[in-house]
Amino acid sequence: MTDVLEELHGGYIVARATADRVSAIVGLLADDGLGAGRERPIDDPVYTDAFRAIGADPNQLLVVVLDDSDRVVGTLQLTFIPGLSRGGALRAQIESVRVASTERGSGLGSALLEWAIGYSRDRGARLLQLTSDKSRSSAIAFYERLGFVASHEGMKLAL
Amino acid sequence: MTDVLEELHGGYIVARATADRVSAIVGLLADDGLGAGRERPIDDPVYTDAFRAIGADPNQLLVVVLDDSDRVVGTLQLTFIPGLSRGGALRAQIESVRVASTERGSGLGSALLEWAIGYSRDRGARLLQLTSDKSRSSAIAFYERLGFVASHEGMKLAL
Repeated sequence: MTDVLEELHGGYIVARATADRVSAIVGLLADDGLGAGRERPIDDPVYTDAFRAIGADPNQLLVVVLDDSDRVVGTLQLTFIPGLSRGGALRAQIESVRVASTERGSGLGSALLEWAIGYSRDRGARLLQLTSDKSRSSAIAFYERLGFVASHEGMKLAL
Repeated sequence: MTDVLEELHGGYIVARATADRVSAIVGLLADDGLGAGRERPIDDPVYTDAFRAIGADPNQLLVVVLDDSDRVVGTLQLTFIPGLSRGGALRAQIESVRVASTERGSGLGSALLEWAIGYSRDRGARLLQLTSDKSRSSAIAFYERLGFVASHEGMKLAL
């Protein structure tokens, strides 16, 4: 059963990810200059375990974009973070955005992000945040066109 | 009952935040150049509601640092984010770090962050991340001394 969240124009749909989509999502994560060196074989059980952990947390929403042939052509993960800061504001955060190389330039990336912005607002979030590797200059320009402001340093520490 | 997570040297303890500490935490959040304009009166019920939402989510951990007079002199929030990226890595994220102005220069900030790094590692996180406003140059240098790398743009969109 596909849990459809939104129909985008062009015949694409945004749907909650199901277990049978995990390999396709990992394929998209790995089909990327930075992601390629970071991922394992798509059938590695670490991904099934991680998918289960995502599904167990109501503050996580992993979505796929399906094309009209039911192929996974996009993904992102939304995380909702309650907090005291900014007047007790709920934050939404986006991780792991990918659009299949076959679909780039189709406007799908913008449509997917606009869906995420609307969904986060509807859920009561007052701030939406993400980090983007500084080497991804076209991604950063893309997010700026959507209204994001690169006001912060995104700092990472490998554990 | 104080749920002590760690004793730091200097008589400080790190403890899970309880409802009776919310006002003191909000006081710390507001006692800050950027935070001052963003917070409401400390008794505003939005904070109690947000505290309840944090407590309902096992992937959130809001902590306080108490001094030897049981005064709240520091805080931060840890969020654990399961995901498929990076081989199904669990991420930890830090938000809303504050140390009371009376304690600055005491090494408390480093001790608190080092506790957060160890706690995140013990919980199985493989990456720890945070964003810091680009105007906070001394905070950014502080995180770099702890090993964080400013590899990403931290992008925000008000909803």
